[in-house]
Amino acid sequence: MKYPNSNKVYSKPKESAAHRGMSLEEDINRTNRYYLNHDLAVIHKKPTPITIVKVDYPKRSAAKITEAYFKLASTTDYNGIYLGKYIDFEAKECESETSFPFSSIHAHQIKHLSDVIKHGAVAFIILRMSAYNKDFLIKAKDFIEFYDSAQRKSLPYDWIRENGFEIASNYFIPCDYLKVVERVFGLQGDL
Amino acid sequence: MKYPNSNKVYSKPKESAAHRGMSLEEDINRTNRYYLNHDLAVIHKKPTPITIVKVDYPKRSAAKITEAYFKLASTTDYNGIYLGKYIDFEAKECESETSFPFSSIHAHQIKHLSDVIKHGAVAFIILRMSAYNKDFLIKAKDFIEFYDSAQRKSLPYDWIRENGFEIASNYFIPCDYLKVVERVFGLQGDL
Repeated sequence: MKYPNSNKVYSKPKESAAHRGMSLEEDINRTNRYYLNHDLAVIHKKPTPITIVKVDYPKRSAAKITEAYFKLASTTDYNGIYLGKYIDFEAKECESETSFPFSSIHAHQIKHLSDVIKHGAVAFIILRMSAYNKDFLIKAKDFIEFYDSAQRKSLPYDWIRENGFEIASNYFIPCDYLKVVERVFGLQGDL
Repeated sequence: MKYPNSNKVYSKPKESAAHRGMSLEEDINRTNRYYLNHDLAVIHKKPTPITIVKVDYPKRSAAKITEAYFKLASTTDYNGIYLGKYIDFEAKECESETSFPFSSIHAHQIKHLSDVIKHGAVAFIILRMSAYNKDFLIKAKDFIEFYDSAQRKSLPYDWIRENGFEIASNYFIPCDYLKVVERVFGLQGDL
């Protein structure tokens, strides 16, 4: 399968350094630490939401949760501030070579993205297409437009290449999405 | 104990409706739901951070976390967007009549507030003085200035009344902090 070169790739990912078998979450966390340590942005992953049922309080040691369940997230996983702007995004890894299934993203996460857009957020999705070892930034607005009008139940890779923006990677910044944010959303920064 | 009337109370809390024995967290969550449902702002509490050690995956039922521990939060509890602005705050209840102990707020939460201020956030602390049934908004900047220069280890109630801004309460909006945010931070909104 061969695709035409997208004209939206702003800088070529260094394939040799890219990802090194790390999960997208690990790569984004490391990227966010880099941004924070270099005073570029303050963006954090939210903790996994759980419902706590039972907690033991043993003497002389830390409280231990002994029964809890995973809860569906009501928002996206990441948010924060960059160049004075509220940033909000969801990150997803996709194994398929051909498309990203809508079932991988919850309806209330899409509603959340739509809510924050109304209030002026810089909102997007980071999609790792594992088969190609490529990360794309997709504007939440573009994603929602396709999602709302689609006859199908997934986002085709062709669409992702056409409408997404490839994210560069290097050892220190394994998923340098803010460089793309700056250009795609027209912000002025130092990256 | 009698204090002079503060000239910074923008609207008098309706004592009869105020709080009704709810925790500050419950009041803020209800307030945030009101803001969200009325399209005024998108602000959520972050989930409690925990470290998951063991998970059972029983057949035909939900994954069950059987061992986990509470982690220290590395950020504040609440953030989101209002009038295009990144909002970030911590909420604390204080039992003491005379002062709010600094030990109630972690050093890395103060660092986080200081980090987001640098990037242009609207950052503050909501402090419930339970003994007086009053909620105050304190600008994070003011709090940090006092904290950094203080010889003492707590924030005196006199200082809170002088420098904080009382937050009104009603049945539907039990902690209407955005009305205060709008005026104190000079934002223009519909509240």
